[in-house]
Amino acid sequence: MVDNKPTPLFKVNSPNVTYTEDAIHSKYSYQTTFVTTDASGSLVAEPVTSDFEFVTQTKVPRTGLMMVGLGGNNGTTVTAGIIANRENISWKTRLGVQTPNYFGSLTQASTVHLGRDLHSGKDHHVPLAKMVPMVDPNTFVIGGWDISAMPMIEAMDRAQVLEPDLINQLKPHLQGMVPLPSIYDPDFIASNQADRADNVIPGTRAEQLAQIRSDITTFRANNACEQLIIVWTANTERFAEIIPGHNDTADNLLRAIEANHPEVSPSTIFAVASILEGTPFINGSPQNTFVPGVVELAERYGVLIGGDDFKSGQTKIKSVLVDFLVGAGIKPLSITSYNHLGNNDGMNLSAPSQFRSKEISKSNVVDDMVGSNPILYKEGA
Amino acid sequence: MVDNKPTPLFKVNSPNVTYTEDAIHSKYSYQTTFVTTDASGSLVAEPVTSDFEFVTQTKVPRTGLMMVGLGGNNGTTVTAGIIANRENISWKTRLGVQTPNYFGSLTQASTVHLGRDLHSGKDHHVPLAKMVPMVDPNTFVIGGWDISAMPMIEAMDRAQVLEPDLINQLKPHLQGMVPLPSIYDPDFIASNQADRADNVIPGTRAEQLAQIRSDITTFRANNACEQLIIVWTANTERFAEIIPGHNDTADNLLRAIEANHPEVSPSTIFAVASILEGTPFINGSPQNTFVPGVVELAERYGVLIGGDDFKSGQTKIKSVLVDFLVGAGIKPLSITSYNHLGNNDGMNLSAPSQFRSKEISKSNVVDDMVGSNPILYKEGA
Amino acid sequence: MVDNKPTPLFKVNSPNVTYTEDAIHSKYSYQTTFVTTDASGSLVAEPVTSDFEFVTQTKVPRTGLMMVGLGGNNGTTVTAGIIANRENISWKTRLGVQTPNYFGSLTQASTVHLGRDLHSGKDHHVPLAKMVPMVDPNTFVIGGWDISAMPMIEAMDRAQVLEPDLINQLKPHLQGMVPLPSIYDPDFIASNQADRADNVIPGTRAEQLAQIRSDITTFRANNACEQLIIVWTANTERFAEIIPGHNDTADNLLRAIEANHPEVSPSTIFAVASILEGTPFINGSPQNTFVPGVVELAERYGVLIGGDDFKSGQTKIKSVLVDFLVGAGIKPLSITSYNHLGNNDGMNLSAPSQFRSKEISKSNVVDDMVGSNPILYKEGA
Amino acid sequence: MVDNKPTPLFKVNSPNVTYTEDAIHSKYSYQTTFVTTDASGSLVAEPVTSDFEFVTQTKVPRTGLMMVGLGGNNGTTVTAGIIANRENISWKTRLGVQTPNYFGSLTQASTVHLGRDLHSGKDHHVPLAKMVPMVDPNTFVIGGWDISAMPMIEAMDRAQVLEPDLINQLKPHLQGMVPLPSIYDPDFIASNQADRADNVIPGTRAEQLAQIRSDITTFRANNACEQLIIVWTANTERFAEIIPGHNDTADNLLRAIEANHPEVSPSTIFAVASILEGTPFINGSPQNTFVPGVVELAERYGVLIGGDDFKSGQTKIKSVLVDFLVGAGIKPLSITSYNHLGNNDGMNLSAPSQFRSKEISKSNVVDDMVGSNPILYKEGA
Repeated sequence: MVDNKPTPLFKVNSPNVTYTEDAIHSKYSYQTTFVTTDASGSLVAEPVTSDFEFVTQTKVPRTGLMMVGLGGNNGTTVTAGIIANRENISWKTRLGVQTPNYFGSLTQASTVHLGRDLHSGKDHHVPLAKMVPMVDPNTFVIGGWDISAMPMIEAMDRAQVLEPDLINQLKPHLQGMVPLPSIYDPDFIASNQADRADNVIPGTRAEQLAQIRSDITTFRANNACEQLIIVWTANTERFAEIIPGHNDTADNLLRAIEANHPEVSPSTIFAVASILEGTPFINGSPQNTFVPGVVELAERYGVLIGGDDFKSGQTKIKSVLVDFLVGAGIKPLSITSYNHLGNNDGMNLSAPSQFRSKEISKSNVVDDMVGSNPILYKEGA
Repeated sequence: MVDNKPTPLFKVNSPNVTYTEDAIHSKYSYQTTFVTTDASGSLVAEPVTSDFEFVTQTKVPRTGLMMVGLGGNNGTTVTAGIIANRENISWKTRLGVQTPNYFGSLTQASTVHLGRDLHSGKDHHVPLAKMVPMVDPNTFVIGGWDISAMPMIEAMDRAQVLEPDLINQLKPHLQGMVPLPSIYDPDFIASNQADRADNVIPGTRAEQLAQIRSDITTFRANNACEQLIIVWTANTERFAEIIPGHNDTADNLLRAIEANHPEVSPSTIFAVASILEGTPFINGSPQNTFVPGVVELAERYGVLIGGDDFKSGQTKIKSVLVDFLVGAGIKPLSITSYNHLGNNDGMNLSAPSQFRSKEISKSNVVDDMVGSNPILYKEGA
Repeated sequence: MVDNKPTPLFKVNSPNVTYTEDAIHSKYSYQTTFVTTDASGSLVAEPVTSDFEFVTQTKVPRTGLMMVGLGGNNGTTVTAGIIANRENISWKTRLGVQTPNYFGSLTQASTVHLGRDLHSGKDHHVPLAKMVPMVDPNTFVIGGWDISAMPMIEAMDRAQVLEPDLINQLKPHLQGMVPLPSIYDPDFIASNQADRADNVIPGTRAEQLAQIRSDITTFRANNACEQLIIVWTANTERFAEIIPGHNDTADNLLRAIEANHPEVSPSTIFAVASILEGTPFINGSPQNTFVPGVVELAERYGVLIGGDDFKSGQTKIKSVLVDFLVGAGIKPLSITSYNHLGNNDGMNLSAPSQFRSKEISKSNVVDDMVGSNPILYKEGA
Repeated sequence: MVDNKPTPLFKVNSPNVTYTEDAIHSKYSYQTTFVTTDASGSLVAEPVTSDFEFVTQTKVPRTGLMMVGLGGNNGTTVTAGIIANRENISWKTRLGVQTPNYFGSLTQASTVHLGRDLHSGKDHHVPLAKMVPMVDPNTFVIGGWDISAMPMIEAMDRAQVLEPDLINQLKPHLQGMVPLPSIYDPDFIASNQADRADNVIPGTRAEQLAQIRSDITTFRANNACEQLIIVWTANTERFAEIIPGHNDTADNLLRAIEANHPEVSPSTIFAVASILEGTPFINGSPQNTFVPGVVELAERYGVLIGGDDFKSGQTKIKSVLVDFLVGAGIKPLSITSYNHLGNNDGMNLSAPSQFRSKEISKSNVVDDMVGSNPILYKEGA
């Protein structure tokens, strides 16, 4: 049983923080610097302060997690990990018995430096999950969509990620769990995915949008969720073209869906459905799901959207190293890496237009660093 | 010709910063958090502010750089790099002509984010060397000590670091440059260094200290330096034992030198000489040069001391990666690395007691990270 | 059921090969060259031919395989592999179902070029195992000794080599299988093995020899074996000292065992027992089990002995590459490799005297190549 | 001065070897096996002996080496190596002074096991170059063709292979050395070579062939060479199409050249010119220079041709390892390698049709091994 209103691990004693019945109110002054050029042509740096007030609800809502690509490698692995942790399932491996944990999760396995102890002088590090009231992933209600109708039990075998003994023990908890039909558009997803696509929503883009919205409301109601999070963890799509009059504003985008315009990608339809249902949407692939019309729509409805690639592997390591090197005045001349691809990821990258999405997304990481140091990287060189 | 009072690249327009004839005065509020435990046993975090005032001289002093280990790989490479930059010497390599630069220098080749342009919204990145008035390394007057009397011209060949064509062009600038005699104590430096030791200061520790102090004042006077920096870039010593009554306080340490106590290392004698001459001392090797008595002495004289290993190579990369991984909730189980050793460094590490110095120093980097995350690394495990 | 007299895959039609009821008789002329120096000091090369006759029994004997170190990583893995192949056991892994095979076995998975087809011109490659009548490993009766009394079922878990599902299916076939007590001499085996040593033969070396001989005859009788092979696959011992009068001749060695001389290693006792029982003995570790007295004893009894380290991993790869490089006139300057150690192997190498055994053994591989090319490697350099 | 009739290092004392004034006559029986299938369907292996007689001239001819691609990385490096060895030029590098040698040359730096010493029992290894009279590379007269007219002195800088100090000392020996014009056919060589092509033979294929033949006779006469060797060390071409009636027979090929047929590659024209001039031709690139018509022509004129890629780097290492692994019954599942490309080689491989040449050539190495072991690699799998 999980306590939805957890006792706080610590209190903040400051005039900037007040605790009420339902929320923590905190004031924060963010300091930054603006730069102008004076009459003589030299730069003038001027500090500026912005004041924020954060309100954090203390009651954690019952939360559902809906994944697009539920039956893929990510979807099955996340599902298995949550159930193994929730049910405390241990499993046999070649190297001994493995117990479940959330190692590798930023929220569940990292700590934050709270401060130095006034008396002992020792540092206090607090789990990130205990800084503020936060959903315990063990309480997630899991569901989602996939273009393949394979039941989750079999999909876990197909993914070749999990140990046989773990899958065996998960089976009773996965009974009857089958992904909802998803949107399949061969123009956006690599053609080699065609074999999997046996579970698709028919009709026009407008009809698909209506179906997704209906899926969301049904899932929320059936599971008595107070809050949903929708995550795109399906295959990388090609970039969508930005076309004035079609996807450049919220209204144009809605009209384009209505008109079944071919340049609206499946991930964009999912994002629009989420926003219209007031549900946060996270994009885990590198394509440009968030065309300008999506961003405007999210602002209009006050819905949180975010993400452009999980960047969990070599992309992240690369950016950490380049950040360190360039920041230390060292000039990397080239970056070489080897992508050990998951099965579907590899198939996907063999399709040139999807690979382009990945390239564009990944080069940004490095471009920012290069742009920040004109000593090492002269402009135009 | 280098202008010793450089025109500032930018001005700060803030009540916290004032510019006078000779200095920049800036006020800074440093915010941190203290943690206490209340009656009920929960932690209480309380923000605390400390106010600092920094005074930065605008006139850059004529500065001398004295290296201990001047004829070694570090000493000859730093000397060559500074002269090549100062004299703008290009040299031929297998891959083409190479021009000199300061890439790899934190102060000369890294930038700082100054702020965002009020009008264009673009970020301004400013060379670190232009943030405040700072010595240009091209103006350094270079000298130092070495236990080998080999002239710098020949020492550059011995180091096997620099291209033949560069050494050839440097020769006129190195004419007559020979390291001063240094302190050789076979008990602290690996025995395989004995062959090199043909340039040593004789006598007791007190006599050695007097000689170093005299070397410093002579160098300063002969070169009209307003400021000196002394850097230990010689071989790694073994750790010195901390002995109550001998090196635990400033006065005990000075008495121990007077009494020629065998547990006072050469690097500690250099540090004491620097402090007594009012000169900053940087330690680039991992041994414990800064025994408690040295630290107290530096505080007494208000002299800056710092450094425990340059940590320029794999140690730094390792700490950057561990910091990222543990900070992201990922648990590294082991760290393996391969040390491609310079010639003398390798010889040195083959001596067990010096190797121990390197081990102790390097493991600290990782220990801090492990200590910060009790989720991943349970106490005692 | 295995046919002990297999139909031959091919016949040799040559005056040098005759087939009788029970055997294949073949004559072979081995050509080599002797070198002498003539009066003028130049070398004279003279071809020499030696004639051999090989008699190969066509009936394959029922064969037992007794391993010293049966419960270790090698012993349990070999046992599991043979049973899985014999019983045709498939098992689940993360990547799918795995079926058993003998890939990696020189005799079972390599082929020999028999010749070119007279008509088609195509090459015929024949499995090595079909060249002459040869024991099928599936028919091996398996047994042996170990200083740990852990039953084979548990020992397979301890080894952390095999998949849980395979171990599970092997259990019925391993029921009651426990290694015989072995010889434990802490002076020869790394001290960190002491924890495992709960299954040791007590008494003097002479008593231990008698026990091993008795174990061999009992095993042969109980399992109706016509032939046995004994393999040392236990831990690496330190080198034994060669002491004139003690282990330099067969008789001295037998007297030394009688006198319980401390410089007779456990592996040498096993080798002596094998020879006296007329059983071939293979040494899979790098120590000098085969002291001169053992070699003389084997010759006296006409028993085959062989082996100094399995050299299955990096040692073999290294020698293949050095052989190619030096043979092509390329001069390797150094060889660096990383030993990914099995659990017990690692513990063992942490003991300096055992590590020395491994070093001596492995450097020989390279020394031979270096000695063969005085152009690349001048003598004495 | 090089003695063209070297005193032999050893004599062979055998009825199969006789020494005359001008030659060494040796008889050799080569034993192989033919395979047939008997009435019952089993294989029958039958040994067969072929008798050869080799005649080796004892006088070594004055030999010229003409390279196609003389100014490229291979051409300049070979030329520099031969001159440095011939003139005994040492040069400075970062790591010290380097003296010239022929390490890496199969003929000059490898040894052959001659035999065992009858008295000492020690092995005699003899330099391959001393086994029979063989040209000393120091005596080569060097020349050749290149589509770039850059003089050799500058081409060595362009190649970025050799140390500046070596190039400097080679200059007097390279004075006036400029490649002859070569054949440039953009359809066969990657288009990115166009920039270099400023030194090309104009006209039809027939005119080009006549020019190359004239170059060969002129070079031979001017340098009083008794023997020439021509080596293609230029860029990789695309594969030529095999067209019946055009390049499938010697006569068709000669007619195709006469008719200026576009499917005759530059390397084929060079091969034809060599054959018609009675000069051996070695092909160092992977394309199919030796179309059937070339092979027939070489047989007709009794001229030696050979080679399909130097296979000096990773291709060779790969084949050595695969040969060992498959031969030991180990099944490699995939081979991954990283090609660190020379400058022009990299440019070349970026052109798809040339890359195909390289791929076809390299996969053969592995295919042979796979075909030899149907246990590991089942047919059709």
